[in-house]
Amino acid sequence: MAKVKKQPRPKAETPKGFRDYFGAEVTQRKAMLDKISEVYQLYGFDALESSAVETVEALGKFLPDVDRPNEGVFAWQEDEADWLALRYDLTAPLARVYAQYRNDLPTPYRRYAMGPVWRNEKPGPGRFRQFYQCDADTVGAPSVAADAEICAMLADTLEAVGIERGDYIVRVNNRKVLNGVMEVAGLSGDDKVDERGIVLRAIDKLDRLGPDGVRSLLGEGRKDESGDFTKGADLNSSTIDHILRFATASQDILQQVMKVATGGLQHVENTFGLENARKFTDAQIAWNSIALQQLRSLIGESEVGLEGVAELETMAELLAAQGYGPDRIVIDPSVVRGLGYYTGPVYEAELTFEIKDEKGRPRQFGSVAGGGRYDDLVKRFTGQEVPATGVSIGVDRLLAALHAKGRLGKDTVGPVIVTVMDRARMAEYQSIVGELRAAGIRAEVYLGNPKNFGNQLKYADKRNAPIAIIEGSDEAERGVLQVKDLVLGAKIAETATHEEWKDQPAQREVARGDLVSEVKKMLG
Amino acid sequence: MAKVKKQPRPKAETPKGFRDYFGAEVTQRKAMLDKISEVYQLYGFDALESSAVETVEALGKFLPDVDRPNEGVFAWQEDEADWLALRYDLTAPLARVYAQYRNDLPTPYRRYAMGPVWRNEKPGPGRFRQFYQCDADTVGAPSVAADAEICAMLADTLEAVGIERGDYIVRVNNRKVLNGVMEVAGLSGDDKVDERGIVLRAIDKLDRLGPDGVRSLLGEGRKDESGDFTKGADLNSSTIDHILRFATASQDILQQVMKVATGGLQHVENTFGLENARKFTDAQIAWNSIALQQLRSLIGESEVGLEGVAELETMAELLAAQGYGPDRIVIDPSVVRGLGYYTGPVYEAELTFEIKDEKGRPRQFGSVAGGGRYDDLVKRFTGQEVPATGVSIGVDRLLAALHAKGRLGKDTVGPVIVTVMDRARMAEYQSIVGELRAAGIRAEVYLGNPKNFGNQLKYADKRNAPIAIIEGSDEAERGVLQVKDLVLGAKIAETATHEEWKDQPAQREVARGDLVSEVKKMLG
Repeated sequence: MAKVKKQPRPKAETPKGFRDYFGAEVTQRKAMLDKISEVYQLYGFDALESSAVETVEALGKFLPDVDRPNEGVFAWQEDEADWLALRYDLTAPLARVYAQYRNDLPTPYRRYAMGPVWRNEKPGPGRFRQFYQCDADTVGAPSVAADAEICAMLADTLEAVGIERGDYIVRVNNRKVLNGVMEVAGLSGDDKVDERGIVLRAIDKLDRLGPDGVRSLLGEGRKDESGDFTKGADLNSSTIDHILRFATASQDILQQVMKVATGGLQHVENTFGLENARKFTDAQIAWNSIALQQLRSLIGESEVGLEGVAELETMAELLAAQGYGPDRIVIDPSVVRGLGYYTGPVYEAELTFEIKDEKGRPRQFGSVAGGGRYDDLVKRFTGQEVPATGVSIGVDRLLAALHAKGRLGKDTVGPVIVTVMDRARMAEYQSIVGELRAAGIRAEVYLGNPKNFGNQLKYADKRNAPIAIIEGSDEAERGVLQVKDLVLGAKIAETATHEEWKDQPAQREVARGDLVSEVKKMLG
Repeated sequence: MAKVKKQPRPKAETPKGFRDYFGAEVTQRKAMLDKISEVYQLYGFDALESSAVETVEALGKFLPDVDRPNEGVFAWQEDEADWLALRYDLTAPLARVYAQYRNDLPTPYRRYAMGPVWRNEKPGPGRFRQFYQCDADTVGAPSVAADAEICAMLADTLEAVGIERGDYIVRVNNRKVLNGVMEVAGLSGDDKVDERGIVLRAIDKLDRLGPDGVRSLLGEGRKDESGDFTKGADLNSSTIDHILRFATASQDILQQVMKVATGGLQHVENTFGLENARKFTDAQIAWNSIALQQLRSLIGESEVGLEGVAELETMAELLAAQGYGPDRIVIDPSVVRGLGYYTGPVYEAELTFEIKDEKGRPRQFGSVAGGGRYDDLVKRFTGQEVPATGVSIGVDRLLAALHAKGRLGKDTVGPVIVTVMDRARMAEYQSIVGELRAAGIRAEVYLGNPKNFGNQLKYADKRNAPIAIIEGSDEAERGVLQVKDLVLGAKIAETATHEEWKDQPAQREVARGDLVSEVKKMLG
């Protein structure tokens, strides 16, 4: 009806946990995603953009995801019909899409996807309820060649966006190896699901808690600094020893392998001397076979465990054939990956350079991407097992890393601002700006209230404008324009003496006909 | 808890009214949006990506939008807190963002935004509940120079994506003129809101229903072909005449103006003879002043009407100064734009070329973008009037237009497929594919079950692969590869005799070391 209900003024606020992205925040992310999709395309992956909305049923809200018991989705009910929900990741929709279109899609189906996902979680500082993911998955390829390919692609992707070789490492493990270790430790029964969950999460925290912390979690539990208590797996001490031997297998060597990868041989040589550096390099080259040997010794006769080790070995071979050695992609038994649905290889990309934390202490940047093989997701729909493997890049974290390394392009250059000295001359200002744009120069006429000229220059400053153009009736009569170099002007204002300022004026007169060429020259 | 509830298998279906986009559907849209944002940037507009989720309160679910009484939003309630909803356009979020950040944003604030919006409507054929919009708005610029700028940018944008000059026309009107006409027709009172709505919608349908149809809607109402009855405004016949005179003002001349714009002078000359063609061309050049004169005669003494005509005149002058004549941007009194919130200039871009409708009849492609000035949207939040104007491009319609004109790039070229003849040689295949990628060639190893070689070629076909590479143990021993030109192969299979086929084999042997250069040559 036509009557408008009188309401109190609405609050102009983003909902809690959501945010807006402005200017360079949008274009820098876009530039990064463009580079990523180029690599994905190069590897033969095709774009997919699935609906943001799924039925709750298809989304698999009830996936047994032991790591995220409290995470929910944003859902609502259609008028007396299905419940719909916003996707919470890009993998569940892929499983639905593949099941729905499997007769039309090529098999294997290599696809990439990038876009927002939504989580109905308690928002916190830096923790948002809408964020970007960027995934690549191969569906219908049973061979670990598919997993190896994704690890190689992940390494290429990181380099393509600006993370240099040595600043990242892709760490690979295999859930079957973990399951083999569990088997040997007597934790393979159906009644041990909870314990296995605790063990996986404990290993995952090795980096942060160290071996003693993990030991507590495998045993009676652990009280953290704040006094909170985390329930342990209550394993006996020999089982705990066995698991710890596995999780920390060759961590020392791995540390050094990664130091070589990170700092380069020269760095290691400077720090440890030539002789030791050689040893480390040898260790690095030999690393994957050392690791495989150690793993074999820990899984004994476990069939699934042996299968896992064999798969890791195949992956290492395939990767080596393409030149991806342990300086880029390394076998690391401590990689777990939280998600319950992984069934084979798991992998994650870690950035190894240091940044300062909130308290100014140096710490490693950490993980920016991860994934693995999940052979059961499509089965939910079709009843048939469809092998699949894929990676998800944490877009915001990777952007933050590029920011920390100074690898992001500068903010978009602001437009050239044509100021308004004389409102009656607006048509002329429009024609100036038209000429500039025709020459490919970002430009605009000031469209606010032109009365106060100072406001126009303040506006130009806020827009990060490189140049302001001024044409009053005096200039118009003489067929000239004033061109003000705002970048130079700011520099002069900061540093120059009055004399210098006179010699190198930031503002000069230009013939009307020379405007475009002069502006081009000034912009370089 | 660890126990997984046994559930029936979920259906693999996109929710009703939603869809997925595959491969070229994603990349072609992206390419188009990239070109659009280049133009927007050139005009000084900055990117904004606002949250997809808004509070229902901020979204203004209760906006008096007479044209869309049944359109809803997808909304849900936070635990005993606010109602949240998916944005239904990009304008309401802009108003919220500007109100929220107005102290940090430059004024005027030129921003562009592109992304999905959601409408809780009954889905129908070709009518989706999630679709893309692509908007550009200027907030805080009271002058119609801002509206003129957006019209010029719209014309540039259409040409940038591949719509040639003459294939589109941007039509401009002003709500104040419409209000002036209403005033003269005695429809300006607060008690005439319903009638005004009917009149606006009726004029909007002039194209489709013709003058007689509009006359019925202004009078007693209209029964359409299906027998459905639309309530009329019940105006008396002199009022109806007045409104019709306005809406059809110079429609005849406009038709011809648009024919000149569409077909070019030569076309008009061929059709109507040289003498008439000259008249049409003169009419085209003079069109805007003719239109303004006619409008003035229809709005009498109405103050708001005169203001509207003056604004149209200013816009025409500003546009002419940049070279945008009525062949690209034209004053057209029949432009209404549905949305209730427009307060000044309204504009829309129409594609003037013909396509075939479902029944094979030729019809004009029609509108692909529209917008106007809305000075009251921000006021909802702040209480202060903030002038704003902006355009929204119908992304899917514009894509369809480019498709109809054959202006979309071909589907992404498929990858070169390295087939698997011998599973044991997988590492070698990976190294081949690695070399190709290093040379920038899209390539992949076949990762399905390699047993059936025919399936590998079928896969290559489905992927639109230009080349397949074959290396069995025999080839490997001899240091060669078989390179199969799949494009040529398909052509030969279609047209060639057996003799020709032998002379021009689609498959040939290449030395292993020459692979990359040979493939490069074949891909051109």
